[in-house]
Amino acid sequence: MDKNYVIGIDLGGTKISGALADLDGNVISQCTIPTNAAEGEQPVLNRIVQVIENVMKDANKTSEDVKAIGIGSPGPLDAKKGIIITTPNLPFKNFELVTPIREKFGIPTYLDNDANVAAIGEFVFGAGKGTENMVFVTASTGIGGGAVLNGKIYRGNTSNALEVGHMTLVEDGPRCNCGNYGCAEALASGTAIARMVNEVLEQGAESSLRNYDKVTSYEVFKEAEKGDKIAAEVLGKALNYLGICVANLVVTFDPEVVIIGGGVSQGGQIVFDTVRNVVNTRCFEAMAASCRIVPAGLGTNAGVIGAVALAIMESK
Amino acid sequence: MDKNYVIGIDLGGTKISGALADLDGNVISQCTIPTNAAEGEQPVLNRIVQVIENVMKDANKTSEDVKAIGIGSPGPLDAKKGIIITTPNLPFKNFELVTPIREKFGIPTYLDNDANVAAIGEFVFGAGKGTENMVFVTASTGIGGGAVLNGKIYRGNTSNALEVGHMTLVEDGPRCNCGNYGCAEALASGTAIARMVNEVLEQGAESSLRNYDKVTSYEVFKEAEKGDKIAAEVLGKALNYLGICVANLVVTFDPEVVIIGGGVSQGGQIVFDTVRNVVNTRCFEAMAASCRIVPAGLGTNAGVIGAVALAIMESK
Repeated sequence: MDKNYVIGIDLGGTKISGALADLDGNVISQCTIPTNAAEGEQPVLNRIVQVIENVMKDANKTSEDVKAIGIGSPGPLDAKKGIIITTPNLPFKNFELVTPIREKFGIPTYLDNDANVAAIGEFVFGAGKGTENMVFVTASTGIGGGAVLNGKIYRGNTSNALEVGHMTLVEDGPRCNCGNYGCAEALASGTAIARMVNEVLEQGAESSLRNYDKVTSYEVFKEAEKGDKIAAEVLGKALNYLGICVANLVVTFDPEVVIIGGGVSQGGQIVFDTVRNVVNTRCFEAMAASCRIVPAGLGTNAGVIGAVALAIMESK
Repeated sequence: MDKNYVIGIDLGGTKISGALADLDGNVISQCTIPTNAAEGEQPVLNRIVQVIENVMKDANKTSEDVKAIGIGSPGPLDAKKGIIITTPNLPFKNFELVTPIREKFGIPTYLDNDANVAAIGEFVFGAGKGTENMVFVTASTGIGGGAVLNGKIYRGNTSNALEVGHMTLVEDGPRCNCGNYGCAEALASGTAIARMVNEVLEQGAESSLRNYDKVTSYEVFKEAEKGDKIAAEVLGKALNYLGICVANLVVTFDPEVVIIGGGVSQGGQIVFDTVRNVVNTRCFEAMAASCRIVPAGLGTNAGVIGAVALAIMESK
């Protein structure tokens, strides 16, 4: 029997989403249930299994119809071995996630981290479609990334490639959560933008941002657009560093496209204009000109669609 | 008839070196003649052809015995099309180098830039042997690089990947030859070390480096080892930036090994100790621990051996 479907699972700290899709990525059935992470490893594994069973049942399919299962999870994890090493919001510690699922359903099963899954999703169905070499950067609370090189996801030696948020951009810059100083994540993430605003406000600066109880990058973009000088200044600094991070990726990978996703990328045209400008200033002309810099093409469902793409790509 | 040999050509501004080797890289015959670049495109092409003929004749082989020809050249060039775009010390401008050689000898012919050829040489015969993911960095007059990823050379979209010397490390740092500011090459190359020494000496600092008519990184390493403070200080700064450049490559590629070649790498243990220390400080522990940082394994003949490796790798 032809196996014309795949299942994608987006494993998150609060919910598990799954979809059964055809090999063109058309979703036939979808299901989301709470993770209930506090219950521990086995119950969460059981809930993943339940989502897989649900989407097959809802689509009127069996494991005979399914070519592969793709799972996206926060990391660090070992994609080759199918093991989640540890992750802040899930109970798994050095947990073999892939083996029990593969054995339960008799379906080839693939695991990868969120950023790689998002990169694969963009490559197969999104803004990276039709390219051979693309880099994906996600800038939200943190900064992460993934790369498809010569048409294949690039994972590196310990499945941790493209930790672009921990590229050092300022030798003695602000301390990053990783313990290092001056990482891109400490200079250009949503968290960094909020921290910089708070630092400036504490120094007594006048700003419409004082009207908010809590400032995130969303409010900073909003007030900058309305003309608030402090918001615009902080944003200018942060986006300049995001631009340097992308420029360093352009000289390193010479890619056809850099795709930027995550909350910060939703700040609109100013994000892409600033990054483009920094890349044009800092990279060789031919490389800069041949590299598109675009927003992510997949929307809110990107996690599940990326996992579907992982299943399709790995089972080819 | 079995084709058990390859030819490697190292095309330089002053000389053209060639070797005929077996598929294990054992050199059977070798030949070096002056480039005479000033004579122009066709005469230099003729001299490359002459080197190929010489090494075949000296080894008692004909084009029937040769599986592939590999050519390493300064860039920028288009490896896929076999075209040298331009290079400061050679007469070629948008010159199709590969086609006439392939047609003349009826042998598959491959062109790549110096840094990629050096990376391939290290991967096949040098310090990267047996790895799947390795990054090569060369620090001498400039800083360049190459990467073998998933067992294949990674060239990028315009054959310019791994221009790691033009990674921005200091936003408003010293101006680089490329026109940008704060590139790794402007902070950590041999040229940068010499420039920094001259700047400090012009400010009147006491140093044994004043005893030299001309200071290159070689003298700076020598005097630093003898205890000169200025030499040690400049070197400390430069090698710290080389370390940051390598650390950024480690978080980006998560490689098994970073191989450092070029004149600066010959400064000895202090180079590798400093780079190792920066990588350990700035990268995630697991990634840093799993990545070796080692000197290049190929010696003075690296250009020709790399070209031999290119021929072997591409004709597999």
